[in-house]
Amino acid sequence: MIELILGGARSGKSRHAEQRVLQTGKHPVYIATATAGDEEMRQRIARHRQQRGAGWRTIEQPLLLAEALQQADQADACILVDCLTLWLSNCMLAEDPALWSQQQAALLACLPALKADVILVGNEVGQGIVPLGEINRRFVDENGRLHQQLAQIAGRVTLVVAGLPLTVKPQQGNPA
Amino acid sequence: MIELILGGARSGKSRHAEQRVLQTGKHPVYIATATAGDEEMRQRIARHRQQRGAGWRTIEQPLLLAEALQQADQADACILVDCLTLWLSNCMLAEDPALWSQQQAALLACLPALKADVILVGNEVGQGIVPLGEINRRFVDENGRLHQQLAQIAGRVTLVVAGLPLTVKPQQGNPA
Amino acid sequence: MIELILGGARSGKSRHAEQRVLQTGKHPVYIATATAGDEEMRQRIARHRQQRGAGWRTIEQPLLLAEALQQADQADACILVDCLTLWLSNCMLAEDPALWSQQQAALLACLPALKADVILVGNEVGQGIVPLGEINRRFVDENGRLHQQLAQIAGRVTLVVAGLPLTVKPQQGNPA
Repeated sequence: MIELILGGARSGKSRHAEQRVLQTGKHPVYIATATAGDEEMRQRIARHRQQRGAGWRTIEQPLLLAEALQQADQADACILVDCLTLWLSNCMLAEDPALWSQQQAALLACLPALKADVILVGNEVGQGIVPLGEINRRFVDENGRLHQQLAQIAGRVTLVVAGLPLTVKPQQGNPA
Repeated sequence: MIELILGGARSGKSRHAEQRVLQTGKHPVYIATATAGDEEMRQRIARHRQQRGAGWRTIEQPLLLAEALQQADQADACILVDCLTLWLSNCMLAEDPALWSQQQAALLACLPALKADVILVGNEVGQGIVPLGEINRRFVDENGRLHQQLAQIAGRVTLVVAGLPLTVKPQQGNPA
Repeated sequence: MIELILGGARSGKSRHAEQRVLQTGKHPVYIATATAGDEEMRQRIARHRQQRGAGWRTIEQPLLLAEALQQADQADACILVDCLTLWLSNCMLAEDPALWSQQQAALLACLPALKADVILVGNEVGQGIVPLGEINRRFVDENGRLHQQLAQIAGRVTLVVAGLPLTVKPQQGNPA
């Protein structure tokens, strides 16, 4: 079962996603795409880690998401990817200009075959004024397209508002 | 029947709107408010046109939207306006400072009398940080007010998230 | 009964909140957190005041929100706070760097004990590109966290889109 959880910045989407993982009763795995590049980010990461509590296996992988998923894949695991948007950003800022399209294709190819449950967290960034700069517009475009593609294959899609889940695509397939 | 379809940038709102048009079984008409001012825009327009496929009558009209609607109005037509936000932007950037309020009034006046079904696509731009600059704030204001006014007269309002429709105003009047 | 009404800029959230207040049949009280710092803001305030009409008691309080609520608290009153986001902004821009956390704690402490109905209006600002500047990111963070905390204690949470209410948390406790 693949679940997509979207929300704005500081909407409570990560916390909601962590609760969903724990509800499955499976072994929780956390794939962190953030990198502690500066002090502000270090504090965010530490706060998230503290919120999650013990019992989670953590994999840090800013770029090669499909590889990390395959590495953690087990039928009794529920893998949380937090978050897609940082992963996109990391890939777009990488030196290799083809990295993003390769990594995106690898993710979409690997997801249907995974034995684990997977919960993917993404940041809504397209509901403000479209920012200046081609890179910003491309980022909004790629993020939105990725969410659309994942929403197609997800068995459940949720938008988190003020920490509360709004159902966008009701659960399909096996209940969790 | 008038339908309003809202969504952020790259939310899949255009594609959803096109599917809604085709579901009516009526002759599809596309009113494009975009103008191919630069290469980036030309590519976006070409991609949208390719997605739609053949069979659509296309009218390009960046400013005089009410006139374009009246020109295309037939009982067996379903007219897609894509999108309101570019039309607002075109009108606000026009030399005549009164153009926007004139065009907005003309749209609101003509809609109830049309024989065709009309599906209007608009961009949510007000859920980010309010950007600096009076023109940006005015743009957010006018866009939001337009959506509110159209939502009042629409028989159905939808917010598209990751390509999926969230019902904001359930269908009223004749089913389509 | 505490109700949280969220929405983007110019989403119609204030008008919807005013209607909710009037539906209670209680004495309407308006706590305005805006300050008429410039001509643009003066016009916005005047337009909102005109929309509300007569019959409202108005309290202007840009910073000390908990005090204003306690001052207006009566069992036969329904108090509208419009809006939380300007209040946050006023507190964050104040000279005293501890003011925001003090005022936030005071609000969360006083709300459960109030006899009046309270309707709180907040601005969604986190669904666009995260803006540059630490102050902007902190603003988005604090605004989002405040909404999450209030959504926990609110008996009803609504997201306003194009003037129409989307239910995020259905009404709980006594109906109004």
